[in-house]
Amino acid sequence: MTLTAHSIIAGTEAARPSVEAATAAAAGAFDVYRDTTPQQRGAFLDAVADEIEAGRGAIVEAAVSESGLPEARISGEAGRTTGQLRLFADVVRRGDHLGVRLDPALPERKPLPRPDLRQRMVPLGPVAVFGASNFPLAFSTAGGDTASALAAGCPVVVKGHPAHPRTGELVALAVTRAVAAHGLPAGVFSFVLAPDAQSAIELGQELVADPRIKAVGFTGSRAGGLAIVAAAAARPEPIPVYAEMSSINPVIMLPGALADGDLGALATAYVGSLTLGSGQFCTNPGLLFLPDGADGDAFLTAVGDAVTASSGQRMLTEAIARAYESGAAALREAEGVRVLARGTEGGDLAPAPQVVVAGSPAGRVTDEVFGASGVVVRYADVDALVPHLGRLEGQLTATVHSSPRDSDAARRLLPVLEGKSGRILFNGWPTGVEVSHAMVHGGPYPATSDARTTSVGTRAIERFQRPVCYQNLPADLLPDAVRDDNPWGLTRRVDGDLRLP
Amino acid sequence: MTLTAHSIIAGTEAARPSVEAATAAAAGAFDVYRDTTPQQRGAFLDAVADEIEAGRGAIVEAAVSESGLPEARISGEAGRTTGQLRLFADVVRRGDHLGVRLDPALPERKPLPRPDLRQRMVPLGPVAVFGASNFPLAFSTAGGDTASALAAGCPVVVKGHPAHPRTGELVALAVTRAVAAHGLPAGVFSFVLAPDAQSAIELGQELVADPRIKAVGFTGSRAGGLAIVAAAAARPEPIPVYAEMSSINPVIMLPGALADGDLGALATAYVGSLTLGSGQFCTNPGLLFLPDGADGDAFLTAVGDAVTASSGQRMLTEAIARAYESGAAALREAEGVRVLARGTEGGDLAPAPQVVVAGSPAGRVTDEVFGASGVVVRYADVDALVPHLGRLEGQLTATVHSSPRDSDAARRLLPVLEGKSGRILFNGWPTGVEVSHAMVHGGPYPATSDARTTSVGTRAIERFQRPVCYQNLPADLLPDAVRDDNPWGLTRRVDGDLRLP
Repeated sequence: MTLTAHSIIAGTEAARPSVEAATAAAAGAFDVYRDTTPQQRGAFLDAVADEIEAGRGAIVEAAVSESGLPEARISGEAGRTTGQLRLFADVVRRGDHLGVRLDPALPERKPLPRPDLRQRMVPLGPVAVFGASNFPLAFSTAGGDTASALAAGCPVVVKGHPAHPRTGELVALAVTRAVAAHGLPAGVFSFVLAPDAQSAIELGQELVADPRIKAVGFTGSRAGGLAIVAAAAARPEPIPVYAEMSSINPVIMLPGALADGDLGALATAYVGSLTLGSGQFCTNPGLLFLPDGADGDAFLTAVGDAVTASSGQRMLTEAIARAYESGAAALREAEGVRVLARGTEGGDLAPAPQVVVAGSPAGRVTDEVFGASGVVVRYADVDALVPHLGRLEGQLTATVHSSPRDSDAARRLLPVLEGKSGRILFNGWPTGVEVSHAMVHGGPYPATSDARTTSVGTRAIERFQRPVCYQNLPADLLPDAVRDDNPWGLTRRVDGDLRLP
Repeated sequence: MTLTAHSIIAGTEAARPSVEAATAAAAGAFDVYRDTTPQQRGAFLDAVADEIEAGRGAIVEAAVSESGLPEARISGEAGRTTGQLRLFADVVRRGDHLGVRLDPALPERKPLPRPDLRQRMVPLGPVAVFGASNFPLAFSTAGGDTASALAAGCPVVVKGHPAHPRTGELVALAVTRAVAAHGLPAGVFSFVLAPDAQSAIELGQELVADPRIKAVGFTGSRAGGLAIVAAAAARPEPIPVYAEMSSINPVIMLPGALADGDLGALATAYVGSLTLGSGQFCTNPGLLFLPDGADGDAFLTAVGDAVTASSGQRMLTEAIARAYESGAAALREAEGVRVLARGTEGGDLAPAPQVVVAGSPAGRVTDEVFGASGVVVRYADVDALVPHLGRLEGQLTATVHSSPRDSDAARRLLPVLEGKSGRILFNGWPTGVEVSHAMVHGGPYPATSDARTTSVGTRAIERFQRPVCYQNLPADLLPDAVRDDNPWGLTRRVDGDLRLP
């Protein structure tokens, strides 16, 4: 792979990346940027979306070329990326993320008067964002982490992903144009791109270690995420890391779903979700629990047919394709595993999809194989299923297929699944993550490094904030968000009661 | 010190602590306790307060005896403890902490329909609480961490503090009675007490390492907090730690405050805050910035007089008193430090208060000396002050004394202080932390291990929760909090808009 793209440091193209220059500019820009009003910051986020739309043709072309993903998919991802920025613009203008709380003074209270107390959320400071290989737009340079950090009032330094350098540069230039057009300090956004994969790791470590960086957003492998978590914890001042790392997204077929459903359609839908985008999704359904019995047997036969008929699709990079091949082979050779079916290779970097059947969900069977590889585990009844689920690691999603006759079983599974995952879905497939207010794309370790939050959806803005309380501030010094006359028209909590504006 | 108290493990007195028994009981109780309704959980928290009030005489007597703190102080702390439990009962009944978000299905949306998405917060699981030496009631067995964790729906295992074992046991028995009276599983609350200080450290490490523990609340020394943070990060499944560790709580006297104020009253108030409770407060004002010039000189003279007239008060434990003496001596002998004044010793374990003047706020001068020891640093003007503040570590509080003529200076300091502390107060003193909705008792590292939250005030409940999203759940399986008919009468966010019940 030849990198032909540049770093964009505080508005200026640079042939060589400089973490020092980018973080110094970000720190320098922080005080101005954090003080932008909701209207100003919202307009800026909309402008980032506008600039990406203006450059959309070249951006989509670069992303298709660099990722190998189909144009329809990349085009959809571009829409998701700009939609996400506009959604955060709306969130910022509404201002609920400021979480304002007012406890008015009680000067006559006995035995002690209560002071005037006002709380708001403030941004943490410059944020480092590590984009994902599998979403060159929506989880990358101006993706969800960047959008939510900018929305919170944090300058952003993106570590460009070596799998799509030119896409990253073009998006970075779009963001940079919006920064300039809105008269913001150039340090609000920088993009540092390493010249090769080895130096990319070093660059990432340098970025996380930089004292001016105050939080990190990451989407990628478990090894990569854990290295960043360790680097952040080893700093003189440790910082929060939001790493979205790995998940095998268990799917549970309950007996009623098979008895009452169309087995062929269910099997086709499963294999469709498993092989979508060559299986390169965080929410790929890597593990499926199937009841013993004739319906399960028939479903499995249909799955085998669908897999056999499937063909490999080009994966994102050679390294990812090779990792899939070796992971898929290790799975096939693992103890207690038999191959149900394999598809055909689809040409260069397009290895064959596969589904295997395993005796129990343990050991290598539960290691994520990034790509279109699925494991089916049979179970006798819910009593046997619950301990299986209890032993799984934390997951992004858990899926249940049920019919009304499965209600008791589903009710019993729900608390177990809540403890294991960030999103529970019924009668669907986990691929496809809505960007909205109620979405959770997160989950217990090791799905993410911090289950208290989400990396998709509007709650993501909360990751980059912390509360500050003002006690007895003179009125002329109060930040606008907590002033008595509420100039921003915010919803606020007064003595614990929510007051709409 | 002789320990005469017992562990209380899942409702039963035990002569020897057992982390295994306590955490197993907590894990076993979790599913029932988390499913309590807002009314049930609120009633339980009120009952804990009732039981503490019922046993108040014996509890206050034990706490006075074990802590050496005056009865009036301990009696006030008892009221704060029960008030805090009742405040969290109100929060739970209101239910806003559930953070419900609903994004209704859009089946007709193109190109893809939107599924039905519903989000709520769920409790993390069993929480380990390490109480503080300096607040045997309000920050200990049934203190803020325990109250907020129970409010969130998490069973609690308290590691009893060896400085007040009998107080801890009595409070634990009160909580245990409330658990039993409300028909809750006994594992909702346990209290493990080590037989001596060395085994207390081992017991704490064992508790944090236990896989059933899902979060930790801690108030204490920086060394203790960092050891717990490291133990939690080293687990196969790392967990959140909320450690409130150390702070020197800078106070900035601006020139107008001196020119327009009563210097004698200001000096008396400063020394009063510094020596309150023998200086054993997280928010003790350990560092004061004073302008050069005649007003500053006069203030300093008055401070010296007040310190000289002050007398030591008995500290909590012999170890704390010895640590104060050696820390205070090291400070007096540090380079560039001169002693302004020392008070008199107040008898056994009651070392003399002191105030020193230092040339700059660096090195040993900024190490916390837990107790009544203050440092004054003179400054020429705000230009000289800002870099001083910029180099300070993270703090719980920052205080400014100003008059209207200081507005420009105060305005310039505010963003610096926001970056350094969790609470900013004007024309007061940082000791005294209101338990309310807008309070923040937290701050950037190393004041706490996690600045995104607070350990005092109602926002503390958020520390022990994480979001879960339900996608296309059958109506009969939906948790009550997210049902269409809103049986709990919650405020909910629908498509991003807050809807009051």
